[in-house]
Amino acid sequence: MIERAVILSTGDEIMTGKVVDTNSNYLADKLVENGIDLVAVITTGDVPERLEWAWRTAIAMSDVVISTGGIGPTVDDLTTETVARIAGVKLVRDQASVDHMKRLFASINRVMPENNLKQADFPEGAEIIPNPLGTAPGFRLPVTLSGHTSELIVLPGVPREMKPMMENWVVPWLQRNRGTDKIIAMRIFQTFGMSESALDQAVAGLIKPDEARVGLRASFPQISLRLTVEGQPGEAERKLEELAERVRGKISEFVFAEGDVSMEEVVGRLLTERKLKLAIAESCTGGLIGHRLTNVPGSSNYLLADFVTYANEIKAGILGVSEQTLRTAGAVSEECVREMAAGARKRSGADIAVATSGIAGPDGGTPDKPVGTVCIALDSDRDQVSRRYQFRGTRDWIKLLSSQVALDWIRRFALGIPISESALFRR
Amino acid sequence: MIERAVILSTGDEIMTGKVVDTNSNYLADKLVENGIDLVAVITTGDVPERLEWAWRTAIAMSDVVISTGGIGPTVDDLTTETVARIAGVKLVRDQASVDHMKRLFASINRVMPENNLKQADFPEGAEIIPNPLGTAPGFRLPVTLSGHTSELIVLPGVPREMKPMMENWVVPWLQRNRGTDKIIAMRIFQTFGMSESALDQAVAGLIKPDEARVGLRASFPQISLRLTVEGQPGEAERKLEELAERVRGKISEFVFAEGDVSMEEVVGRLLTERKLKLAIAESCTGGLIGHRLTNVPGSSNYLLADFVTYANEIKAGILGVSEQTLRTAGAVSEECVREMAAGARKRSGADIAVATSGIAGPDGGTPDKPVGTVCIALDSDRDQVSRRYQFRGTRDWIKLLSSQVALDWIRRFALGIPISESALFRR
Repeated sequence: MIERAVILSTGDEIMTGKVVDTNSNYLADKLVENGIDLVAVITTGDVPERLEWAWRTAIAMSDVVISTGGIGPTVDDLTTETVARIAGVKLVRDQASVDHMKRLFASINRVMPENNLKQADFPEGAEIIPNPLGTAPGFRLPVTLSGHTSELIVLPGVPREMKPMMENWVVPWLQRNRGTDKIIAMRIFQTFGMSESALDQAVAGLIKPDEARVGLRASFPQISLRLTVEGQPGEAERKLEELAERVRGKISEFVFAEGDVSMEEVVGRLLTERKLKLAIAESCTGGLIGHRLTNVPGSSNYLLADFVTYANEIKAGILGVSEQTLRTAGAVSEECVREMAAGARKRSGADIAVATSGIAGPDGGTPDKPVGTVCIALDSDRDQVSRRYQFRGTRDWIKLLSSQVALDWIRRFALGIPISESALFRR
Repeated sequence: MIERAVILSTGDEIMTGKVVDTNSNYLADKLVENGIDLVAVITTGDVPERLEWAWRTAIAMSDVVISTGGIGPTVDDLTTETVARIAGVKLVRDQASVDHMKRLFASINRVMPENNLKQADFPEGAEIIPNPLGTAPGFRLPVTLSGHTSELIVLPGVPREMKPMMENWVVPWLQRNRGTDKIIAMRIFQTFGMSESALDQAVAGLIKPDEARVGLRASFPQISLRLTVEGQPGEAERKLEELAERVRGKISEFVFAEGDVSMEEVVGRLLTERKLKLAIAESCTGGLIGHRLTNVPGSSNYLLADFVTYANEIKAGILGVSEQTLRTAGAVSEECVREMAAGARKRSGADIAVATSGIAGPDGGTPDKPVGTVCIALDSDRDQVSRRYQFRGTRDWIKLLSSQVALDWIRRFALGIPISESALFRR
């Protein structure tokens, strides 16, 4: 019965600060999602006695050890032989794995180096965990030390290979072996525009502590809300859907997506569906809005142009912002962004345009317009909206938050919900 | 004598996958720089018996334990009392720390909550490590268990507070207690345009293994080269400078900076110094070049405009790319980017302009122009340069690499070194 886990992360590149260990974070998240208690994460380098200590320590404290790294083809890769030595079994070669590796190398027209064969050796009695994307399969092996048994799950360190193995093999295995017939149903809402405390309070009013586990995670500038319900199959999903409906009913306009979806993906999908063409005019965000939208494949379906008009002469010459506006209201003003948006739409023939202008800092602030003053406008044949915000934070935060508000305005416009309510962070 | 270290990282937010533990990576890096052997990183949550286990395990394996987290004001913050219990000493309140906290709260016009006083309690005999940026000071305490002594160094988990404490207090302390009068001198070179293996080979030909420790770290799209020399004060720095001269002599054009400096900072500095105004025309990079340059304060000194001309009509209408070029050579062609760069320069009155157009994928490739085909041009009254590259990777890598090449072209132009040699990745 699997209740307690230890994560083991090995490799000199982590121990020398060369690589940030994001695997452990990912695995911790998966364990929490599946109701397993993570006791500790132990990280050590490719030194035989340290690896042996780490494995023995991990086994003693857990029902399952999930390890990443150390199963590559080089002499530094010691995980498999360390596990076999601790388990007191010999290594046996798996012909299916040899064949899989040979096919992988053949598919890129290369001869498999002899040392790769090592990756087809497994401790006797191990169950092989297939690795469709790489040469090194993983394995599962139960090991008993001093009367206590722990299940060892050995995965490669390359995140691109490890994650699908975790999702397709290890998570279902964990669920089958949790020693309960209950399942865990989970839903993630991506929100923008409410503060963490406002969101916390809103959800606390909707969901009682015994109905679901509620987790908020701020990854600036958005906050995700995770609901987890444990229960009998069928029943847990029904309960979750009921709670999800309550959340949608209360904060729907701030939920921009359900699941692992970014704001730029949502905006791209909405514009594509509604066949709307977009133009952007950026000043303080400096190209970030365009960059974010073009990170999503298919952005050429709706994005016509992004005019990053950093100098005032360009705002005037390219977008037609009036000399009068620049002289009296200034480049950071609602008047200016309204003219920028209108000019961008006119110059490109787009259906909608958004514009930003502000003071991202750290210099350039004045008493009237301190650092963090950002004006945003949206122009269409239906709406002309503008607003002045006062943001706080470093230059990159102000850029990122401004870009997020502009994207949220486009989303709200496409959905026909009030633009003016975006990012007021009312408590 | 401090030779072996263990890093201890505590906090439920790490154990539930809420936060990636970047502190441990930073600390690992600092330990390596200072010649200390990192035995293990142990991470655990805010559970008393797990914390006690983690501390006892860490002490047994090390001469120094560096811990982050668990010294906040809440009941979950258990580090200080766990350490005192293990050391067998009582907690004593430090009045200077109380006064410092009160001043901090007063400076933001708030009354200090009563529970913050906890952060002024330290195990008896501890040496306090000042925290200029936050309420919780750290401390150092030697603890002996079963005849073995380890120095415990307790720091806050907030990176912004922890890092200056590490740099200003802990690193000098480690250097004094390493049990050697040798020092470690270090230099970092930021390179772009050579492959990792080419760089490795070039440096191997210049520096013998006993002269310095050489570390390469690829953080796409650039590679940093770190030279570390251990020796007597004065002598180590002289040796390092001699080696640095050899590196500069051999690969100078690929070294865009020494120290912790980004490509966009270098470009910004060069354009500002030389009073050159820049315009950009982006297609496949979608605003990323502008975004990167405007991340650096002061970019309004040299950046006039960035025309993200995603649609062909905009390339023609705004930048004056000819219908003929778009029809025959296509938007992804050297002809097109040359016309884009020339148009951007003309429309903005800039001294230099760069342009990008390519196929970032995953769709849109053809046999003639597969995904990863990227054309780049630079236009000035001195040079007109263009080149077609074939990059490999995901959409975001192709965008990032293209933006890096364009920035490197500007750098090379400003320095008067050959543009054509950028990013050929010759082996």
